[in-house]
Amino acid sequence: MAVGDYPFPEMPAIAGVAIGVAAAGIKKPGRNDVLLFALADKGCAAGVFTKNAFCAAPVTICREHLGAEKTRYLVINSGNANACTGEQGRVDALTVCSAVATAGGAQTAQVLPFSTGVIGEPLPVGKIEAVIPALFDSLQESNWEAAARAIMTTDTRPKGATRQVDIEGVTVTVNGISKGAGMINPNMATMLGFIATDAAVEQAALQGIVREAAGLSFNRITIDGDTSTNDACVIMASAEAGNPVISDTRSAAFESLKQAVTEVCTELAQMIVADGEGATKFVTVDVTGGASHDECLKVAYAVAHSPLIKTALFASDPNWGRIVAAIGYAGVEDLDPTTVTVHLNDVLIVKNGGRASSYTEAQGQAVMSGDRIGIYIDLGRGDCRELLWTTDLSYEYVRINADYRT
Amino acid sequence: MAVGDYPFPEMPAIAGVAIGVAAAGIKKPGRNDVLLFALADKGCAAGVFTKNAFCAAPVTICREHLGAEKTRYLVINSGNANACTGEQGRVDALTVCSAVATAGGAQTAQVLPFSTGVIGEPLPVGKIEAVIPALFDSLQESNWEAAARAIMTTDTRPKGATRQVDIEGVTVTVNGISKGAGMINPNMATMLGFIATDAAVEQAALQGIVREAAGLSFNRITIDGDTSTNDACVIMASAEAGNPVISDTRSAAFESLKQAVTEVCTELAQMIVADGEGATKFVTVDVTGGASHDECLKVAYAVAHSPLIKTALFASDPNWGRIVAAIGYAGVEDLDPTTVTVHLNDVLIVKNGGRASSYTEAQGQAVMSGDRIGIYIDLGRGDCRELLWTTDLSYEYVRINADYRT
Repeated sequence: MAVGDYPFPEMPAIAGVAIGVAAAGIKKPGRNDVLLFALADKGCAAGVFTKNAFCAAPVTICREHLGAEKTRYLVINSGNANACTGEQGRVDALTVCSAVATAGGAQTAQVLPFSTGVIGEPLPVGKIEAVIPALFDSLQESNWEAAARAIMTTDTRPKGATRQVDIEGVTVTVNGISKGAGMINPNMATMLGFIATDAAVEQAALQGIVREAAGLSFNRITIDGDTSTNDACVIMASAEAGNPVISDTRSAAFESLKQAVTEVCTELAQMIVADGEGATKFVTVDVTGGASHDECLKVAYAVAHSPLIKTALFASDPNWGRIVAAIGYAGVEDLDPTTVTVHLNDVLIVKNGGRASSYTEAQGQAVMSGDRIGIYIDLGRGDCRELLWTTDLSYEYVRINADYRT
Repeated sequence: MAVGDYPFPEMPAIAGVAIGVAAAGIKKPGRNDVLLFALADKGCAAGVFTKNAFCAAPVTICREHLGAEKTRYLVINSGNANACTGEQGRVDALTVCSAVATAGGAQTAQVLPFSTGVIGEPLPVGKIEAVIPALFDSLQESNWEAAARAIMTTDTRPKGATRQVDIEGVTVTVNGISKGAGMINPNMATMLGFIATDAAVEQAALQGIVREAAGLSFNRITIDGDTSTNDACVIMASAEAGNPVISDTRSAAFESLKQAVTEVCTELAQMIVADGEGATKFVTVDVTGGASHDECLKVAYAVAHSPLIKTALFASDPNWGRIVAAIGYAGVEDLDPTTVTVHLNDVLIVKNGGRASSYTEAQGQAVMSGDRIGIYIDLGRGDCRELLWTTDLSYEYVRINADYRT
């Protein structure tokens, strides 16, 4: 189940970013489940990672390696998260890095490891090591769809997005792939995003771009409120496009590249929501009129996480009372119900603390019957605004998550 | 669907608290859906109410009436919550109070109104007024089971509990009924609780008792994280038992009565969880070793609200990785994963940041196959403790909440 139709786009090759895939048999035999990115020597990488205190071994190692050496390789496996695996998990992830480094003629700290899948099972290091030659043999700059497929877990479709932008007379390309599905919540969910560009960017500027872009995209989506131990969004810049190196974060070139990366990340984030586990609706929760960003977010999360609202969305039931109840318990101090308005798409449903007099059930039903629903809440007490994207809660969500390990 | 077996107990009459029920046809024809408590003249009442900013008209009126006059009557309807009904909702609730007051020879402010059911629909005042004579005609001190049935919404069974306690040589009785099911979360959910005792208690002391008892019982349960607009727990004390009036909140008599009320409320709260919408498991989340109560609660709620954990519970899947992930994203500052231990009942599953070496899947499976599961989390960084009761997330929960209005 998934909302809408997102065919995988035509993605141009990015010079200086080669991709290899292989089937290590971690989850199912014959399915590509290991992915290798090889980044040109003169390139660099930057990333943002989960804030989960139980972050997985590969996340810790990514942070360390990004700070220590210029990144040359990213190695990603699906099927096993190498999370909550203690000291052995760290040893295992480093073993994989070391094997990739050896095969690629690099230092271990030039390799970033990523894992997604079941938590708490030992990483099958031997299986991954065994396919490293195949990964290197299959390196190609055109392998984007294969890459997107190799990182899928409960995703029903591969996710990719691409943009081109002119930077000081040079055409620069930005590609991205992601995986998501369950355990999706801001601050990086069981979400992996890999972005690549051929632009020349200094590492500090690249870090600024990925932080801002992720904040406006991946950190705005929530499916079940669970923030995973493994989330990561990494960007690679190969410096092959020939643009003057971007280093000034106040420059037009920086803004242009950031905009393109944000668009790619937003598209990928929305694809993750649309392909959320069991999703039948794509829901935008847009809260305006707040006295602070914090209170807007509180309301947006209360609405986006309410199982009662999510089941009503699944049922296409314009049960606006549940929306109002969620606004009421979100924890906004001294909220005056009479200043709050709520629209479902363009239909005014709540005003003056109750149902809008103009509202009819038929109007609400018409909105809810669609698969793209906007819940627009104005708190009427300030100028702040926050926005989230989420899904409904269906039988299928329960089935997927009740069956995941079986 | 519901966990365990809770036959309605034998509940003794409480002298000075009479109960009438009637079928007003609010939801289904022929089913009792209106309830009247009539409290002896010398008695008093006290209560705690939802903190939802969109609290329903009856909640606002209860607060006002409790502060203004000695309570004589409680009138409760199921099937319609009279919530988010604006100024008309207030007029409607007061109209019902006034009609009860007229029939009972009291002031309007001596009547407390309660409503539970669908949000946002106008209260069918005429239907309720029409059965007021029947409510008064049926007043009996023995009507407890009928009362418990009259307030049910999606509950599958009536909920009642009773205790007797000796207070200064006098046997005092405490009875309670409740309704719950969905939209259950601390600070009073779509939860109504009515407690009655024949003890003589001053109103201020009675308020202290209900606040403390609710804090240890109804405010410890969470099914879906949604706090309703209508929650209320009210206690009536008829002063018919003949005990010396309890006024000193440091007295042994106060403690004894509070203990009995807390036990009744705890039993009722646990019955609400066991009868949670679609519940197949009764789950205790017990967090110890916190540096503060606040961080213990954060962890307990993160675990109790995680849809991934709740679906794993439904599947009887010992997916402890999801528990660890929830602890990790709960927002405990500087949490050191290596000090955290997690038990499922008496089975140690997590230690030193990973799966306990002694743990076997068979052990976890044995615990999860039962319908009473304890998740015991020790943060290993202090002496604070907090505890919640919750349920799993099943297909049935989705079905009930997707169909509620149809």
